[in-house]
Amino acid sequence: MTLTELDTPALAIDLDAMERNLARVADYAASSGLRLRPHTKTHKSTQIARRQMALGAAGLTVAKTSEAEFMAAVAPEDLLVAFPVVGRPKLQRLATLAHQARITVALDSLDAAEPLSEAAVGAGVRFGVLVEVDVGLGRVGVQPREAANLSKAIQNLPGLEWRGITFYPGHIKSQDDPRVPEFNAAVGALVRDVRAAGLDPEIVSGGSTPLLFRSHEVQGLNEIRPGTYVFNDLNTIASGACGLEDCAAFIVATVVSTRPGHMIIDGGSKTFSSDRLGSGEPGFGRILEAPGALFHKMNEEHGFVDLARSERTFSVGDKVRVIPNHICVAVNLHETCWGIRGGEVETCWKPEARGKLQ
Amino acid sequence: MTLTELDTPALAIDLDAMERNLARVADYAASSGLRLRPHTKTHKSTQIARRQMALGAAGLTVAKTSEAEFMAAVAPEDLLVAFPVVGRPKLQRLATLAHQARITVALDSLDAAEPLSEAAVGAGVRFGVLVEVDVGLGRVGVQPREAANLSKAIQNLPGLEWRGITFYPGHIKSQDDPRVPEFNAAVGALVRDVRAAGLDPEIVSGGSTPLLFRSHEVQGLNEIRPGTYVFNDLNTIASGACGLEDCAAFIVATVVSTRPGHMIIDGGSKTFSSDRLGSGEPGFGRILEAPGALFHKMNEEHGFVDLARSERTFSVGDKVRVIPNHICVAVNLHETCWGIRGGEVETCWKPEARGKLQ
Repeated sequence: MTLTELDTPALAIDLDAMERNLARVADYAASSGLRLRPHTKTHKSTQIARRQMALGAAGLTVAKTSEAEFMAAVAPEDLLVAFPVVGRPKLQRLATLAHQARITVALDSLDAAEPLSEAAVGAGVRFGVLVEVDVGLGRVGVQPREAANLSKAIQNLPGLEWRGITFYPGHIKSQDDPRVPEFNAAVGALVRDVRAAGLDPEIVSGGSTPLLFRSHEVQGLNEIRPGTYVFNDLNTIASGACGLEDCAAFIVATVVSTRPGHMIIDGGSKTFSSDRLGSGEPGFGRILEAPGALFHKMNEEHGFVDLARSERTFSVGDKVRVIPNHICVAVNLHETCWGIRGGEVETCWKPEARGKLQ
Repeated sequence: MTLTELDTPALAIDLDAMERNLARVADYAASSGLRLRPHTKTHKSTQIARRQMALGAAGLTVAKTSEAEFMAAVAPEDLLVAFPVVGRPKLQRLATLAHQARITVALDSLDAAEPLSEAAVGAGVRFGVLVEVDVGLGRVGVQPREAANLSKAIQNLPGLEWRGITFYPGHIKSQDDPRVPEFNAAVGALVRDVRAAGLDPEIVSGGSTPLLFRSHEVQGLNEIRPGTYVFNDLNTIASGACGLEDCAAFIVATVVSTRPGHMIIDGGSKTFSSDRLGSGEPGFGRILEAPGALFHKMNEEHGFVDLARSERTFSVGDKVRVIPNHICVAVNLHETCWGIRGGEVETCWKPEARGKLQ
């Protein structure tokens, strides 16, 4: 089957581009002396996770207990749940999983750590813990000055092994952001403060996709957790961390209605997600067949495309390829990924952990 | 199991409120002499669709061929695909379905109608057709002056039965919009023009949820296709078509991290969708336990809640109920709906057609 024979809307993956992305980041991490622990939230696929491990990843990252249940068999040596695991049901599931895999949890409070400790003791397992530090995003994380104290408190909790610190610089969306040197120095100061308090972190984990290729500049960092790099998207291009040719994932859509200067495609917020561009610029995706077109609006199943600045016109039945703004939320909407090489469908897979919310 | 024992994030349905919503609209349609053909895109569940049929619906509406495959057995007497069905794979599937159900397709071009006709002839079936008219949204639909000509052209195509016209006034987001009388009169003129051209439409179908309870004012209308009314959401409240007590669907989330004046809950764009409010106001949902709180930002799995104006404070582990901006896209993200009555989980169901994109 060829790409153009796929029924639409369909999520297609350019396998050559994906393999280049995987290899590039594996090589960068190896040459920079950084542990690579890819975040699987982007692809949600054990098949791709296995490729990442085969290329030298030291472990994997997940956001959800349900994702951990899929990925534990792929990375039993070191699986990080990069989210505070709260509530008895999830803690019990995670304790069960800890019999077969080394599980580490990122958290930012004793309120989260103490029940984790109790769950570990109750099940006769141990959890690793990374203390999450807020480096500017204002999401989860203790303030840097509190990192050492929480770390020491965790060292005193039974069933837990304090392994180090983690952070996510999601507030810096471009590798050319002038705040990068200041951010790098702040991480350096954080690590020095932790060491000065008598702690010896095995892991200092950071590294979003936008700042990925500047990770070697971050003082004291020894692990990176990029996710989006496997596919990339318009936000990654805007960050400077990839080019259009590195966007491995695209949606194939069909033109279902036209009028002069405008067309409707068969994908909207249930196909692409309604995530806007991080830059605030308009548009919900780039149409490869019509670079001047503006995908300006979406309903659930309709994509509105303004063709006023497009040199190409379209007819009902034409197919287009669209690079989404944010691929992580788009993949989560699709039951099937179609792997394409040379215009042919070579393989397909299910992102098994998609839509697993708990 | 009680509501508070649900693992989070979870999509919960207040069954009493849902049943009131279903009955209210069934009663309104009956008392207004309007055929009710609910759009199933909101709930994506055959179980709820059966309730709608039992309450007197004349048929059902779907957006996708895949949704039609789930709903055909529920409404074999009259199933509308309210989307131009384009491309051989979908046409073949729809022709197969037409052996067991009466299928009608809404479309706006001969480019869409001719392949539909060929598929019908090839399979030895007939499709009903409604001509879609653009009444101001600028999405799909011919201009009103073209409705009669396209209708006549469809009458001449073998295998197709022209049944009337359809439109979607999605550009009017409030029942108090001052354009409503003008809109109602424009539909009246459209229907008169169609009749003046010698056509006798069996169906004149409109009716979004925002304008639902003014449908009886629309001249010539005889069918309504509301979807959101089953659950309602913050956009429906803003439209004036429901109150907070009519919002039957909510997300249960857990507080996973706090700092003074702020908290993070365990749901973001993969739980709620990133749909903004139609009004342009900020916020991604209303937290019932903290009316003054502002759910101001989302990442994929994190909800950022500003508590500066909330009288209540929260601790890690607390659970909250959140009414989403747009329930149709939120339901599509959840594998399970939990039906709640009196604080107890009474039932659960799978929205079978969720995530079925083709």
